[in-house]
Amino acid sequence: MSTHPTVAAFATRNGSLCVGGVELPRLVERVGSTPFFAYDRGLLTARIELLRRTLPAGIDLSYAVKANPMPALVGYLSGLVDSLDVASDLELRTALNTTTPPDRISFAGPGKTPAELRQAVAAGVTVEMESVNEARRLVELGQQLGIRPRVALRVNPDFEIKGSGMRMGGGSQQFGVDVEQAPAVLKEAAAGGLDVLGFHVFAGSQNLRAEILVEAQRKTVELARSLAGDLPGPLRYLNLGGGFGVPYYERDTPLDLAAIGDNLRQLQASAHGDFPQARIVIELGRYIVGECGVYVTRVLDRKESRGRTFLVVDGGLQHQLAATGNLGQVLRRNYPVRVGNRMDEPRSEQVSVVGNLCTPLDLLADRIELQQAQIGDLIVIFLAGAYGLTASPVHFLSHPLPAEVIV
Amino acid sequence: MSTHPTVAAFATRNGSLCVGGVELPRLVERVGSTPFFAYDRGLLTARIELLRRTLPAGIDLSYAVKANPMPALVGYLSGLVDSLDVASDLELRTALNTTTPPDRISFAGPGKTPAELRQAVAAGVTVEMESVNEARRLVELGQQLGIRPRVALRVNPDFEIKGSGMRMGGGSQQFGVDVEQAPAVLKEAAAGGLDVLGFHVFAGSQNLRAEILVEAQRKTVELARSLAGDLPGPLRYLNLGGGFGVPYYERDTPLDLAAIGDNLRQLQASAHGDFPQARIVIELGRYIVGECGVYVTRVLDRKESRGRTFLVVDGGLQHQLAATGNLGQVLRRNYPVRVGNRMDEPRSEQVSVVGNLCTPLDLLADRIELQQAQIGDLIVIFLAGAYGLTASPVHFLSHPLPAEVIV
Repeated sequence: MSTHPTVAAFATRNGSLCVGGVELPRLVERVGSTPFFAYDRGLLTARIELLRRTLPAGIDLSYAVKANPMPALVGYLSGLVDSLDVASDLELRTALNTTTPPDRISFAGPGKTPAELRQAVAAGVTVEMESVNEARRLVELGQQLGIRPRVALRVNPDFEIKGSGMRMGGGSQQFGVDVEQAPAVLKEAAAGGLDVLGFHVFAGSQNLRAEILVEAQRKTVELARSLAGDLPGPLRYLNLGGGFGVPYYERDTPLDLAAIGDNLRQLQASAHGDFPQARIVIELGRYIVGECGVYVTRVLDRKESRGRTFLVVDGGLQHQLAATGNLGQVLRRNYPVRVGNRMDEPRSEQVSVVGNLCTPLDLLADRIELQQAQIGDLIVIFLAGAYGLTASPVHFLSHPLPAEVIV
Repeated sequence: MSTHPTVAAFATRNGSLCVGGVELPRLVERVGSTPFFAYDRGLLTARIELLRRTLPAGIDLSYAVKANPMPALVGYLSGLVDSLDVASDLELRTALNTTTPPDRISFAGPGKTPAELRQAVAAGVTVEMESVNEARRLVELGQQLGIRPRVALRVNPDFEIKGSGMRMGGGSQQFGVDVEQAPAVLKEAAAGGLDVLGFHVFAGSQNLRAEILVEAQRKTVELARSLAGDLPGPLRYLNLGGGFGVPYYERDTPLDLAAIGDNLRQLQASAHGDFPQARIVIELGRYIVGECGVYVTRVLDRKESRGRTFLVVDGGLQHQLAATGNLGQVLRRNYPVRVGNRMDEPRSEQVSVVGNLCTPLDLLADRIELQQAQIGDLIVIFLAGAYGLTASPVHFLSHPLPAEVIV
């Protein structure tokens, strides 16, 4: 049986999976209860190192806090990346509480409230404007606060990219300003005194095909070139988005990061000629944290029902909705799952892992090959680092919130 | 344009939707912020009255707290129904904090922790056992605590019902004990000193076809008859489940409650002959609260993108996931939506209502006919009373929690 690369990245010792070098049964004792999420600091560092050595020097690496806003994790990453992207007032506060300077924080999102915009201007972060109405509000706020708002324009491109988990650019969109409307919005923003730094284009997320990301990045640079003349000054900021996918399923092929690095090297060279002052940003969330985290649960019951074996665990979709295939996925497939205290044993039986909710949706793994697990054993669900706890209905059936630890 | 029955049940005054008799703009001022959930006490009362006059007298009406565990709402309903069903320790606490006596509280769910079982035994509620292991734990706990546990057996029947939103009985299931294993479990439970009251069968949820529910209830009574001989004493509790659906979509036909009432009248008469001591329970969550609640948001932005009009509101899937079609639904369809402060105006334009998250999943209404809405208007999403806030990923993008009010 092949070993999934995400699983293989974690150490094992004495038959136990290790997170941050700590064997799982000991980590459970330290946390004090199951279920919980655990993020591996070493794997986070390794992932950033991989990006640094594969992407060209000079590319700004931004962490999209929405992927995992745990303050300790954001604080740790802030020391490793160049900038942070936020999407709400609490994310903004979390980012400002790190040592990342405000001018290296961006704030994106289609429905920023007037209060959020006010906080962002006061903080001096870069607001990625998503509409002409936002531009007008920022002009007003700048006058009210006596602060010149730093902004970029989020552009909805006239191209689409294929193969993404979610498409967020091209066609009609709630995100950004259509490229054909951009010159008028830029003019209004400049006339209103906004400090317009540049552009942000985000075409889609969770893409495993490098050639598509490469093309999107190329087209985004072209788009910036076509719009740069409408800026009041030089282009100083170009956020190419991210969309780098992670291999959620056993048959997924990991992203060819080298191909992306090669392309970015060329793009950077040509862009640097045209836009010597431009900070070129790659913004990643899931790709940085997704594979570095696990969701750890304990087997509460083991039962047979008409030829099928169920392991009932003490967590469920209320903490890790995506693993049940109920977060926008069209097809339900199993995430990698292992018995974390029996890593040396063969995966010799087929079981279904279900959570503790009263709904058949709460299916964490369907007829998966697993080590023989008994009541009390620890079931680990991998790829829980991004869009796990915060993307799950935590109050469903009113169970206690799980702990989160970074080790 | 037809008026959806759920929408028509709410009063309107001065062009505004009313919740609990309060016009929406005033309610917004009273709550202090948008978005929020509002539940209408008068509609809850009316729904219980409808059930009381349509179902036969003597049928026990139980409220499944999981559908909406807001303490004030559970407290209100506890005065109207006969019993409460809970699924976690917090739901148990909420139920015990009402005036419903412990022997009218049931605790179901496939993954009860040993701590939860202990609390349930100490409280004296009826534990609906989902496995032989749970039976064994309850025997132990009874001995430890010196309390005779009150229990019922949740049975996974050998029939399936069709047409449910979710099937939870028949075939192999994580729920309950297969009927063919039931006699052995009952024997063990009785030998261990458990006070075995009877049975619970729950075949599926969100069913709009009365003839299927009628058949499930008939078969459940037959199943109880076939198993009653394995009980240590007389049958004293028979929970027929619920599964009554509500009309989420414009084309849904509401459930024919009268047909269910007629059938239950016959079943009750025959069951009373065989089981004179049996309390026959219908357990409902969604059907009681689903249509009595609305989710109220405010328009933050209105934008055109390539021929499509978007209203961006200050809430989204983080509060009302089901309305976006991302909670187990196979097809995405629009819930009823209205501009709550323009109820007298015609629905004269087609718009898409999106939330404030950075994801295309956050689509609350897709190309829906709506009153012309401007920034600041109130967008109301109906059918938000059940599985709304608690079934949604509230921390997604770290926005503030919405308020909940019962009026």
